[in-house]
Order: sequence, then C-alpha cells, then structure tokens
Amino acid sequence: MAKKTRRAAATATAAKPKTKPQLNERQKKTLGGIIELADGVVTAAQKKKDPHLDVPARALSNVRFNKSKRFIEMGSSVNRRQLFNLSQAKSYMQTMLVASGAKQLIEENKTTSLRGMYYLLKHTIEGAKEETFDDQSESDTIIEDVEVTLNALREELHLYAKNAGSLVGPITLVDSGDEIDCSRMGSGGYSIPSIVEAEVVQFKKHTAKFILHVEKDTVWRRFVEDKFWLKHNCILTHGGGQPPRGVRRLLHRLHYEENLPVYCLLDNDPWGYYIYSVLKQGSINLAYESKRMAIPDAKYLGLRSIDSERCELSPSVRISLNDTDVKRAKQIANYPWFVDKKPWQKEIDQMLKNGFKLEVESLISKGISFVTEEYVPARLAEKDWLD
Amino acid sequence: MAKKTRRAAATATAAKPKTKPQLNERQKKTLGGIIELADGVVTAAQKKKDPHLDVPARALSNVRFNKSKRFIEMGSSVNRRQLFNLSQAKSYMQTMLVASGAKQLIEENKTTSLRGMYYLLKHTIEGAKEETFDDQSESDTIIEDVEVTLNALREELHLYAKNAGSLVGPITLVDSGDEIDCSRMGSGGYSIPSIVEAEVVQFKKHTAKFILHVEKDTVWRRFVEDKFWLKHNCILTHGGGQPPRGVRRLLHRLHYEENLPVYCLLDNDPWGYYIYSVLKQGSINLAYESKRMAIPDAKYLGLRSIDSERCELSPSVRISLNDTDVKRAKQIANYPWFVDKKPWQKEIDQMLKNGFKLEVESLISKGISFVTEEYVPARLAEKDWLD
Repeated sequence: MAKKTRRAAATATAAKPKTKPQLNERQKKTLGGIIELADGVVTAAQKKKDPHLDVPARALSNVRFNKSKRFIEMGSSVNRRQLFNLSQAKSYMQTMLVASGAKQLIEENKTTSLRGMYYLLKHTIEGAKEETFDDQSESDTIIEDVEVTLNALREELHLYAKNAGSLVGPITLVDSGDEIDCSRMGSGGYSIPSIVEAEVVQFKKHTAKFILHVEKDTVWRRFVEDKFWLKHNCILTHGGGQPPRGVRRLLHRLHYEENLPVYCLLDNDPWGYYIYSVLKQGSINLAYESKRMAIPDAKYLGLRSIDSERCELSPSVRISLNDTDVKRAKQIANYPWFVDKKPWQKEIDQMLKNGFKLEVESLISKGISFVTEEYVPARLAEKDWLD
Repeated sequence: MAKKTRRAAATATAAKPKTKPQLNERQKKTLGGIIELADGVVTAAQKKKDPHLDVPARALSNVRFNKSKRFIEMGSSVNRRQLFNLSQAKSYMQTMLVASGAKQLIEENKTTSLRGMYYLLKHTIEGAKEETFDDQSESDTIIEDVEVTLNALREELHLYAKNAGSLVGPITLVDSGDEIDCSRMGSGGYSIPSIVEAEVVQFKKHTAKFILHVEKDTVWRRFVEDKFWLKHNCILTHGGGQPPRGVRRLLHRLHYEENLPVYCLLDNDPWGYYIYSVLKQGSINLAYESKRMAIPDAKYLGLRSIDSERCELSPSVRISLNDTDVKRAKQIANYPWFVDKKPWQKEIDQMLKNGFKLEVESLISKGISFVTEEYVPARLAEKDWLD
C-alpha cells in the first residue's frame, strides 16, 4: 500500500516536473554560501575594489594533527585568487563556474558525477577561442577548492563519486525513502552510496555490537558466505581498497550515532596501514572533512607483522617489500599519530625486518574459512588489536 | 517469522559446520568432470601411457562466428599438455592443482576469488625449491584452461570476480534465499553478484517491459535519480564499463527466461562499440561461454556518430580520436558480425570522418536530465537503434 502511494506520488511528480523542488536546511545553507561568494564579487565591484577569493590552502604545510581531537585538521592559511591578475583570472573564473554549476544542481535537486560537472561547465568562452576547462583534472581541482572555500562536502555540492563499498548485517536503514533490511540483501549486500547524509540515509534499528571493516570485497565475500555477521552479531563493510568518502562517512555516522566500535581488517603492508590511518585520523587532502569522517577510536585488527610466525603461514605466501614499500613504511612510522605509539613502531619495524608483506587473502593457505572461523574471532576474543 | 526461522537455521548450521554440504546437480556435474580429469591420469598410468590433457585452444584462430546462432563460438582445436614433456610438465601440474582446488571449494560449498585460489594453491613443491605458481597471472591463465577443458563457467568452479554492476527496476528476485524487491533498494540499487546461476538467483515476479543497460554507474545514477525505470517500466542495469560475467549472465537470463528486450546506451567510441559487440555476440576470450552470455538480439541505442549534429551538441564536448581509437574502430568495422551491416558501417565510418568521440555524459551540456527525458525516450519512441 505504502509502495503504491509512493509510486503514484513519483508518477505525479513526473507529470509536472517543473515545480521547484523543496530544499532542506543543508541545501539552503550550501546555497547560501554560494550566493555569498557571488555577492562578494558584486560588493567588490560596487566598492570599485578588485574581486578576490580566499581559498584555504590544501597542502601538507597547512595541515596539523589535533592531539585533543585526535584527527588531522586544516590550518588557517589561504591562497588569494584575484580576478584582475593575469595568472589567476582563469582559475577565478573556473571557481565561480563550479560554484554556479553546484547552484544549478542544488536548485534542481539533482546530482551528478565529477565528469558530469566537467561537461556541464565546459564550453568555449564567448568571444575567445579558449575553453572554460581543458580537461577534467582542471575541474576536479577547482571542485576541491570550492569545497574548502564553502566548507561544504563534495556531496553537499550535489556531486557524487562512483559507488564503492558494501554493507551487510543486522541493521535496517532507510535510503532515499526505501526501507532496507541489510540482513536480507542477497550475496551482494547493500551498496553504499556516495551520499549518505541524514537526508538520504536514516538508521532505523539495529542489533549489532560492532562493525568489522575489511579492505577488499573479495575478503568481505568470505565473511558474508560464512555468515560471520550473523554469528558475531556485527555489521560487515568493505571499501574496495581505500574506502571512498561515502563509506568513511557511513562508518563515522554508525560509530557516533549508534555507538558502534569499528575494527579494521587490513593487509599487513604500508597500504593497509595507510587505510587505517585515513579511517582513524583523516587524510591530508580531505583534512577539512576530518570532523565528519575520522574515527579516532577505530582499531586495527590485523594482519600483523607477527602473523607469519604466529599463524605459521607458509613462506610461499610472503610478498617481498619493494623500495616504495620500505619508503612508505618509514613515512607512516613517522606520522605524528603513530610516532609515539610503541605497538605501532614495533609493528612497522617488524615488517621492515621481515622484509615481506602479507595480504589478508593469504590466510586461505590455512583453510578456506580460517580468517572467519579462527583469525578474527581470536583477535576479538583476546582484544588483540592495535590502536 | 520467516526471517527468524532462517536465522535459527543458519545458527544451527554454524554450530556444527562439519556436516557435508548437500551438492546440487550443477555442482555434481562439475565435480564429475574434475574427477574424470583425474581418472584420466590413473587410466593412462595403468595402461603405461603418458598422461596428457587436451585443452581447447583459446585463440583467435580457434574462434568463429556462427551465423545461425549469431554468436562467437570456439572451434575444435586443442593444445595437448603432457606430463612427461619438460616444457609442459609444470603447466600440467598446475592444471591438476587448479582442478583439485576447485574440487575442494565445491565439496566444502565455498567460493573464493581468483586471488584466493592463487593463495590456496601456492606452495613450495616438496623436495624442490620451485613454487607451484610464481604469481597470480599464472594461476589465472590455468583457471581459464580448466574452464574450457571442463566446459564449466568460472563460477561453476566456485570462483568469483569482484562484484560490479547494479540493477534497479520493477522486479523481485531471490538471491541466496533473500527476497529482494529491486524497486526498493535505495540509491545504490541491487549489487549484481558474480554468480547469478539459478541456484543462487531466482526471478520471482516482474512487470518490466524491457532492460536499459547503460555503460557506467555515473550515468546509471542519473537514470535512477530521475526514476526513469518507474516512468518507462523497465529494468535499469550498468556494468561499470565492460560488463563482468555476472552482469552479462544476468542480462542473458532476463532476456531469455523473462522475454525482456535489451537496449544498450553506450559511448560513441570504439570502446562503446566493443562493449555492445561483446554483449551481443560474445567475446573471443570467453567464446566457450557465448551460449550462456551472448544476446544476439540486443540493440544499440546510442550514442551515435550523428548525435553531435542531430542533438546540436557544443563542439566543446568532442574528444578527438587518437591513433588507437582509429585502429580499433577499423578492426571493429571488420568484425564478421558488423562487416555486412550497412548501418554499422555508416556509424563507424561517420565517427572516423567526425574525428571525435562522444561520451553519454556529454549530453548533460543540453540539460542535466536531457539524457533521461529526451534522448533515450526519443530513441525508444522512434525505434531508432542499431542492430
């Protein structure tokens, strides 16, 4: 019945699509920021001053680790972008274009991809032979500038990334009006969208005790097939490698709104350490989003540098570290949030001494379900994780 | 209630996991093939003959276009692989190993990834310093050999690929025992698994009139957001670029079992043509699977080489053809299933004359929802597609 009503409503909307969509508070706020940006140009012109924008600097030098909040945040440096400056005029124009594109999307209540935004804005500048954007990398960079300038998530500009990441477990949520029981989603699970703000995704009820986040979908499949989530009463997620914003944001919301601890099962290599670091402390490039993304209490469940010996893994499954691995491992050991932690120093040091890395998949050499039936249950029972 | 029973059952199974899983007919058949393969070695040994395997040749020379079936199929050439041949002994051993790995997976009723299979089988050969497989590319190739030798899909060997591709629309299916209403799956849709055989996925009911398959998830999102599937009563799918086997197999099953026509919205470039070609006629590398994958009646809905003019697209959205594009376009024009088709010759010829390609996303330059509200509805209404 509810469905029929919903369908009828959708069809009715389809019949007269020209009605202006109702905007929610978040949309109004973002729109307000964009309009303020544009008003700045008018004000400057009226005052006969050169219009400019102050774009917060997205650089390592403008990022710091906040020890009390325990995540990376941006400093206060800005780069001034002026219209009447030959080297800045184009990027000034591009910034305004991206803001106007976002305005159009929000007003029509539609979203698009980064590529869609590029095509939406790309045109030959009137009276010139120049293009607004030569390729997508140009508009992608400007989009990040607009995000930090407006202090708005990309998703709030109505831009989405590719869906990546899945979830399964004893939780019922509502996504775009559809009630979704994540314990009954078949073998593929719930596909985590890139926009998971409360306007789109609401948590309805759950009985989970924790979240197990694994690195790759192939490992996640093993956990799904073995019904790990059912036996251990948890939510299982993966992020398809480095988790995209949608996955990070959903984990953040589940952690803070539903009080669920987050355990991460990642590869024993610099990439796995880095994924953990980003989930926990935020990333340098998205430092302005840490407060909505970082989960400082997330735990690293494995794999560990001691596992080759502890689990008596065959030497055949070792993968030799290459020069990049060694360099990255040393960098990560020096991250401010790892440098004072003895267990992490020991962990990384041991990997360097081992001279090899280990993937979670390598545990299959101990048995197809070793990872779900022995490795992870043992780590959880012994509270044996890194923090 | 049904859910509680299912959960209780699953928990009960978890309590005593050592019971031998019941195998279905398909699993028994695959297992029979593997055992036959192994028996061949024993028989040869008893007859004091050299054991060998005949592996169907996976090469362009052993592939032909079957004009009456209208898809690519494999010829009868085989490569003999002998145990007592220095250059073939290792691959013989590897083939037997992969077969035994598949046997283990089937018997335990578990699946794994290609990488999982690699780790499952990788070890130092007893009494030697040699590894069974040096890297995953070796086991991946042998897995394809075993597939053709046993005439079994990779999925029947209990191996899966990464999930890619989503579906939304007025269809209810059952996936691994979970009933899934694909019209109520939120913004992410139903994540198409890599194994969609009837034992895993059953179609329950649907009211769809056709399937619209789009190339990329970002385009698919536009169609979902505009509720195209609701307005046009269709199933919407995407394959994340070149669709993986799970997506192809699901489209095939929906087309043949549910009588749904398949329309493909792909980029106006050699890659888009190629994706269509594979969906329609099968691929050279997976020619042995054409009968379960190819959809000779699939239609190419666009984008078309005439669209730049017909839709009055801005020259800014053109992407110049590079040398590889030109070469690929000429190759595709010469495919046996395209060479006699005037509309296709005209289409490809026009693209070469244009000197540029067009992505579906470029239609956004005509309006955010131009593709869903004008382009595709017009093509469908006019039955304006290529065959």
